[in-house]
Amino acid sequence: MSYYARLSTVVAARGALCVGVDPHGAVMERWGVTPGVAGLERVALGLVEALGDRVAVFKPQSAFFERWGSAGIAVLERCLGMIRQAGALSILDVKRGDIGSTMTAYAEAYLGDGPLRADAITVSPYLGFQSLAPAYELAEAGDRGIYVLARTSNPEGSELQLGRTVAGDQIAQSIVDQAEARNRLSGQNAVGLVVGGTHDDLGLNLASYRGSILVPGVGAQGGTIGGVRRLFAETPALVLPSVSREVLYAGPDPANLVAAVSALRG
Amino acid sequence: MSYYARLSTVVAARGALCVGVDPHGAVMERWGVTPGVAGLERVALGLVEALGDRVAVFKPQSAFFERWGSAGIAVLERCLGMIRQAGALSILDVKRGDIGSTMTAYAEAYLGDGPLRADAITVSPYLGFQSLAPAYELAEAGDRGIYVLARTSNPEGSELQLGRTVAGDQIAQSIVDQAEARNRLSGQNAVGLVVGGTHDDLGLNLASYRGSILVPGVGAQGGTIGGVRRLFAETPALVLPSVSREVLYAGPDPANLVAAVSALRG
Repeated sequence: MSYYARLSTVVAARGALCVGVDPHGAVMERWGVTPGVAGLERVALGLVEALGDRVAVFKPQSAFFERWGSAGIAVLERCLGMIRQAGALSILDVKRGDIGSTMTAYAEAYLGDGPLRADAITVSPYLGFQSLAPAYELAEAGDRGIYVLARTSNPEGSELQLGRTVAGDQIAQSIVDQAEARNRLSGQNAVGLVVGGTHDDLGLNLASYRGSILVPGVGAQGGTIGGVRRLFAETPALVLPSVSREVLYAGPDPANLVAAVSALRG
Repeated sequence: MSYYARLSTVVAARGALCVGVDPHGAVMERWGVTPGVAGLERVALGLVEALGDRVAVFKPQSAFFERWGSAGIAVLERCLGMIRQAGALSILDVKRGDIGSTMTAYAEAYLGDGPLRADAITVSPYLGFQSLAPAYELAEAGDRGIYVLARTSNPEGSELQLGRTVAGDQIAQSIVDQAEARNRLSGQNAVGLVVGGTHDDLGLNLASYRGSILVPGVGAQGGTIGGVRRLFAETPALVLPSVSREVLYAGPDPANLVAAVSALRG
């Protein structure tokens, strides 16, 4: 079953919500643990343990694991395994983007069968949408997904993303259009998009895009789930709002984590 | 001593050459080892052991280590340590790019004092040059460097990189200009650029940029060291050509690796 079909199934059962696994220092302190590998493990695994049977998708942020070197990456391996065992999907937020054999290695690392396998990863298109081919081809072959950064939630991203390609197309829109073309070709909708939920006006035409859209920036960055629904009212895509701090800061008590997720669903 | 000063010193002593540490499957087979963590270790550490006392800079490609999960990252830690002990500098090719606390975590992972500390890293500006601030600020504070992707060596990168920002500037040139402005402000030249060496015409004005420029694409991607010298004749920057396959495929015999480096210097 394709990634998009698996995502649709789990979202139908559990609701359209992605919870970010962002175990940075401030969260560890809030959870009463010392910043370090043991604290990382406590937060990352504790979050998935508390919510793994009721949240559709988890998005571990690779940076917070890389921060602690190979010991942190070993925790990420366990975290991804726990998400899988709980019947949820994982979108590993790595924002990789490279060319040729290097892009292939990134795809194999996360979309192959190794210890860091995830259901999907985020990727960055500064080297051209086409440079991501090793990732979307492996994703399609193995029922995984990728989410290409199109328009990000931060204000300083607009200068480039709302600029123009050599052909004169708006850059973020050209990413949307290429993702859509690839999905039409493959019939699998393996190519998702990252579009921030903090904008008043997206400045994008998503009316014919039929994949999934990951929407970070809900909660701490100023967006709301209701606001996300309005912002994306015109697209037929599967829209997946992602929250991090509003859930994480409710920990470590599992009951409080569950309550925070319920409150967000409204 | 700033990263740029340290780079200038080692380049004066050993010559302007960066050797890529790209231990992918095809290289392992050429070295007569089975693709896997042991093969990764054999190639990555063997290369640095053979050349560590004569090459100025090594550029490990993170993807080929991530490919093997936490065990691969443990090899990367050892590789970075060997480069440091040999008196060479490391530019860890990770092409990270994110925002806020996530970008800070990437900076701390590679430009702090953890097990993956490198002298410099590559970063990707799709989320805006300003989003990279946590990286260049930490680099400046700790005598490290970053290399921002400006114009990459692959043809499919041009559509975006030669496009225009909202303000109407060419995108790659706007990266160059922002890097230059930051270096003028800090006085440290911590912000380097990645500019591919495979183009006939760069389409960039580098005449007032005074940092260092990492130039991949020499050798297997079609560029030559002489071609790089001509292509960058007009810039006052420290130009650092990077080669990977032409050196790696000469292994595993250390004498052949040394000969390959000598041949490239011409």
